[in-house]
Amino acid sequence: MPEAASVPAARTAVIGDSEFDRDTTVTRRESGVYDISLSDGWTIINAVNGGYLLAVLGRALADALPHPDPFTVSAHYLTASQPGPAVVRTQQVRTGRTLSTGQASLLQYDDEGNEVERIRVLASYGDLATLPDDVRTTAKPPAIPPMEQCFGADNSPVPVPGSSAITERLMLRLDPATLGWALGAPSGKGEMRAWFGLADGRDADPLSLLLTVDALPPTAFEIGLKGWVPTVELTVHVRHRPAPGPLRVSIATRNLAGGFLEEDAEVWDSADRLVAQSRQLARVRLG
Amino acid sequence: MPEAASVPAARTAVIGDSEFDRDTTVTRRESGVYDISLSDGWTIINAVNGGYLLAVLGRALADALPHPDPFTVSAHYLTASQPGPAVVRTQQVRTGRTLSTGQASLLQYDDEGNEVERIRVLASYGDLATLPDDVRTTAKPPAIPPMEQCFGADNSPVPVPGSSAITERLMLRLDPATLGWALGAPSGKGEMRAWFGLADGRDADPLSLLLTVDALPPTAFEIGLKGWVPTVELTVHVRHRPAPGPLRVSIATRNLAGGFLEEDAEVWDSADRLVAQSRQLARVRLG
Repeated sequence: MPEAASVPAARTAVIGDSEFDRDTTVTRRESGVYDISLSDGWTIINAVNGGYLLAVLGRALADALPHPDPFTVSAHYLTASQPGPAVVRTQQVRTGRTLSTGQASLLQYDDEGNEVERIRVLASYGDLATLPDDVRTTAKPPAIPPMEQCFGADNSPVPVPGSSAITERLMLRLDPATLGWALGAPSGKGEMRAWFGLADGRDADPLSLLLTVDALPPTAFEIGLKGWVPTVELTVHVRHRPAPGPLRVSIATRNLAGGFLEEDAEVWDSADRLVAQSRQLARVRLG
Repeated sequence: MPEAASVPAARTAVIGDSEFDRDTTVTRRESGVYDISLSDGWTIINAVNGGYLLAVLGRALADALPHPDPFTVSAHYLTASQPGPAVVRTQQVRTGRTLSTGQASLLQYDDEGNEVERIRVLASYGDLATLPDDVRTTAKPPAIPPMEQCFGADNSPVPVPGSSAITERLMLRLDPATLGWALGAPSGKGEMRAWFGLADGRDADPLSLLLTVDALPPTAFEIGLKGWVPTVELTVHVRHRPAPGPLRVSIATRNLAGGFLEEDAEVWDSADRLVAQSRQLARVRLG
């Protein structure tokens, strides 16, 4: 497990120069093809976090497409990724005046060096800065206590088994109302809420929102289910560039049935804007 | 506009022999490639309905993949489709024991006969019949009045401008609380609710659910916006084979901002199961 990055008190990481930026940097090999070594710093219980992987794909697509910001990204998770060498292969699907659509695959290598696909995404990109400032959002920010009354991994009463490197990359403060699972008393409600930031102080941006929507503990824990809850599919809508400062993330599950559940996530910024929404379909182990 | 299909009183269309099945039938040209002439019977205000197109793609993928039922389908809409010749090109992405993932493109032809892509989808298929019968859904069916107290296009006080052939294919009964737009008095709330069936009596199945999630009037009408609300992206989760009988569809928009909105749809069957959920990102014309 890498040592926690120590940042001098007078200097906070910034967008472009941070753990998140370093670990999602892709190197263009040729037009549309990018190499990366997936970091082992974003693993949770031995699995590379799906949101980190989505951000890697998002970074490559931002370079491959003529528009800078993800507007809607749809990802199907095929096989489990591992830290280490990977390649992202992108394709331009359609270029329009205000939106471009692309496709991207994240692949790794088997023992013979053959490419094995991990994730495939479709994504439509635009320029968030050009959107009109007309806001008629009727959704309300989540009811979450002030950050000082919420709890993080550093003051959690229960150690998380297996590799939990990602907890060192994040500033996560969970709503005590969604922390029962950590104390052996899950609420039974499919909810998870937290204040969210990056541990090195980097502010959020449209790409880091792709990480954010998949960075909280699974709602399944509060429902009382144990074990891995692998993502089958995840769609994210990025609706606005987030303001500086911590984010509030609220996740809800309302349809646990047949061995699958959905997780609906909302991400709110410090200006009370609903900056991202996502839904994922995940598999649960019943019983 | 095609004549409304007249069905003898003693015979209702069935799954496999109905307007929906005929108009979504694809013909395999070669492995993975399917031809179809897109019907003009599923247009709304001169546009071919996006849910009908999704069902066409879903039909092709059901043939191309080893598993029969769509579990999660993510579609990016690229250019507007027209009635007439089209081809669906599919690709197997990954085959697993319980899930298979595929990709499909719907393309039509320009004046020179070149293929122009209309929609690209990623989809993961499984077998709904093999899912355990463990239901812990906490969501509740929509509060919608009994069907007799709801209204359809055949008794609507306001004609819909342009081609509205799709209204003849559907049995749609809208909640009067979400019909203000048709009377020049939109509620201002981003909601739309209706009882839904197919006009020829065919019961719902997993493929017709792909149509259902995009078959109601746009919530934008109730918000007071006029004009076309084109879908940019649509993701559907099919969670259970629907029981026979009418469906209840409830759609909500909570984040109209920056010229875009999301529509969250839930589809409930006659056994009170939440059989499908979807979210689309759509563009609005601001007034």
